[in-house]
Amino acid sequence: MGDRDTSQSQTLPAQAIPITIPNGIHSKKLPLQAGLDASVIQITLTKQPRAVPTPGSAEERSQKVCTDHMISAEWTVDKGWAQPQIKPYGPLALMPTANVLHYATECFEGMKLYRGFDGKLRLFRPYANCLRMMKSAQRISLPSFEPREMLKMIRVLCALDGPKWLPQERRGSFLYIRPAMIGTDSCLGFEVPKEALLFAVISYWPQPAKPTKGKGLRLFASREDELRSWPNGTGFAKIGPNYGPALFAHGEAKRRGYDQVLWLYGPDCQITEAGSSNVFMIRRAQDGHLQMITAPLEEKTILAGVTRQSVLDLAREKFAAGQDVEVEDDTAAGPQHVAALEIIERNYTMPELLTDLKQGNLLSVFVVGTAAFVTAVSEIDFRGHEIQLETDATYHTELLRKWLNDIMYGNLPNEWAEVIEEEGPQ
Amino acid sequence: MGDRDTSQSQTLPAQAIPITIPNGIHSKKLPLQAGLDASVIQITLTKQPRAVPTPGSAEERSQKVCTDHMISAEWTVDKGWAQPQIKPYGPLALMPTANVLHYATECFEGMKLYRGFDGKLRLFRPYANCLRMMKSAQRISLPSFEPREMLKMIRVLCALDGPKWLPQERRGSFLYIRPAMIGTDSCLGFEVPKEALLFAVISYWPQPAKPTKGKGLRLFASREDELRSWPNGTGFAKIGPNYGPALFAHGEAKRRGYDQVLWLYGPDCQITEAGSSNVFMIRRAQDGHLQMITAPLEEKTILAGVTRQSVLDLAREKFAAGQDVEVEDDTAAGPQHVAALEIIERNYTMPELLTDLKQGNLLSVFVVGTAAFVTAVSEIDFRGHEIQLETDATYHTELLRKWLNDIMYGNLPNEWAEVIEEEGPQ
Repeated sequence: MGDRDTSQSQTLPAQAIPITIPNGIHSKKLPLQAGLDASVIQITLTKQPRAVPTPGSAEERSQKVCTDHMISAEWTVDKGWAQPQIKPYGPLALMPTANVLHYATECFEGMKLYRGFDGKLRLFRPYANCLRMMKSAQRISLPSFEPREMLKMIRVLCALDGPKWLPQERRGSFLYIRPAMIGTDSCLGFEVPKEALLFAVISYWPQPAKPTKGKGLRLFASREDELRSWPNGTGFAKIGPNYGPALFAHGEAKRRGYDQVLWLYGPDCQITEAGSSNVFMIRRAQDGHLQMITAPLEEKTILAGVTRQSVLDLAREKFAAGQDVEVEDDTAAGPQHVAALEIIERNYTMPELLTDLKQGNLLSVFVVGTAAFVTAVSEIDFRGHEIQLETDATYHTELLRKWLNDIMYGNLPNEWAEVIEEEGPQ
Repeated sequence: MGDRDTSQSQTLPAQAIPITIPNGIHSKKLPLQAGLDASVIQITLTKQPRAVPTPGSAEERSQKVCTDHMISAEWTVDKGWAQPQIKPYGPLALMPTANVLHYATECFEGMKLYRGFDGKLRLFRPYANCLRMMKSAQRISLPSFEPREMLKMIRVLCALDGPKWLPQERRGSFLYIRPAMIGTDSCLGFEVPKEALLFAVISYWPQPAKPTKGKGLRLFASREDELRSWPNGTGFAKIGPNYGPALFAHGEAKRRGYDQVLWLYGPDCQITEAGSSNVFMIRRAQDGHLQMITAPLEEKTILAGVTRQSVLDLAREKFAAGQDVEVEDDTAAGPQHVAALEIIERNYTMPELLTDLKQGNLLSVFVVGTAAFVTAVSEIDFRGHEIQLETDATYHTELLRKWLNDIMYGNLPNEWAEVIEEEGPQ
């Protein structure tokens, strides 16, 4: 599918809009609110299709270039969700008093659209992102919706812009999908917004760092007076308010030459997140067996990452048999022998890390996330201590990366990867 | 000054723009950044002046109506602050990828423009708001500026729109000024924004509740799993991320028929803030003398309110002589006898409040803030306990309110109130 030189407005048949009335509230007192309904999506094609950036160009790396179209769905407290739109990408007009600009009523998601080695477009566990977006919206007092409807809208946008912006020639690469919701109510008072906008754009995003022997991420540990989140706070939700305040420490880490902040919590310096990624450790326990540890979700201080969950799921399936296992790896000469892992979700602290390192029991620290994928950590600055870490002391991390990559790009059939049917000739 | 029916663009003489280069950084490596400079402000008058809402109308109460003009100043990391603008009020165009919409890089202020009983327009301690805005901007990784330049810009806007929107007939009332800064950088990556916008609008705002015998604010105490802020967090800064997450509890309190959330912190239920206001208590100590208590600033969990500081300053000047004082009050028959107060900034907890109440030692709970002014609390729901409070057991609160009101509206000459010179005939 090449650039479009004509414009057309295409309205899908308007079906009966489902009416949702909260339980226990007398219906007469409530206006009828429409639920989010992807089946009535209206598509308006751009009249000014843009050129796709050259792969590897500064324009592509700018993270400012989006595809030709975007999703837009308006909500009001009286009417609920209006007919969703796919329309030409362009600026939003917000009143200076818009709720989101003052009170940070905003949440977002990060997803990727993969062009498989088999030529097909895929999303990776996209329902998980849509479900989390709904939970984030609820936490930040924005309207709820049926996550499957959001997913349907994203699939339509991907099918429309994927063929041009992530063409067949780009097999093995991806686009970045950014859904977001904002409170657009122009009432300046501190109140739950009565108007909101759900939108989604597709952009380019830097490729995650390729694994390089001995080289990994350099993390700068947060200081005592820098917290990303705290128990009973909002750290679990993907809402804007968790990010802006973290930029102060992030900017300082970058100025010092580090890649990300390692977010610690509490007087015992629990390892919670790194940048916007979850953190995993592989260590040898006293009896010699190996453990894979990551922070737990119960305290709601960390984001329940989709990649985090996928790594846990894969590791439990492949590595947690209780005994050492042989793993097929077609990039190696034959079956690889890897030690069994005990998979543990618990708080792991910097003092533990230092002890494990000193005793030769720390095999790997790595971060995982949609943007970061699975990336080893090679250095941590912990309040003046320079900690050097080996990045290849265990084969587990590389295998996890390979399996996930194979699923995302269609080399390994798995229900986590959902194919997007494309329009037109390919 | 009536509606304007002509438009004109008026550029004040461009003066030398001050160049600021951070200490210790070699100047050759840095682009020259311009500081915020109100002296080169460009004024573009509206071609479509709007009608002023009828006092007390639904339109006025909507908190959506702003005056004809707004302040707008753009910043980029390369060039610093561009020439500030006063221009017709209208929507902002933001790219869907704008930093503020995803990462909540935003801060704001709340100020009032008072139409004095003597006919003059005044601001109340406006430099304190501009200084706090600068500190909030730094905390949320937005650009810094000279607070006095921001204040000059606000004075120009007030002089321009004050005469029409807060005319002589409205003596004794006010407009609400909302300065804000947002990260406008359209790069979607999680990075310190390289572009920002400072703006300010003037709106109507509901009058604070008039003191009514026995009636006051009804507060709903936050639950264990609802925190507004925490030590080493950002509670001290007036940034969007402190507000959006608090709407969840605020919305629930409103649904239950309460006015605001009473924000508690920690297992001992320290009283921190109420809604977006600071909280004061007046209690009788064991030896019989009276204390006025409010939460301290050191832990950075509460906002350093301008009204909070003014109440502390006034109370220390008038009530803290160590002995009972006589106070002139022209609304009363003669000098009023009020007990001396010990002024204390310390954490005060709900268990202390319950004990004081039981023993008859709690004289008053009141909240203070720019929006709330000085308002007594008559009821607190504390996790199922309905606590009823007297609102007129002490004369101190009423005197504080009266003095502040007299300063704001020009009845009592005080350097805290700064007159705005108006343009044209009045």
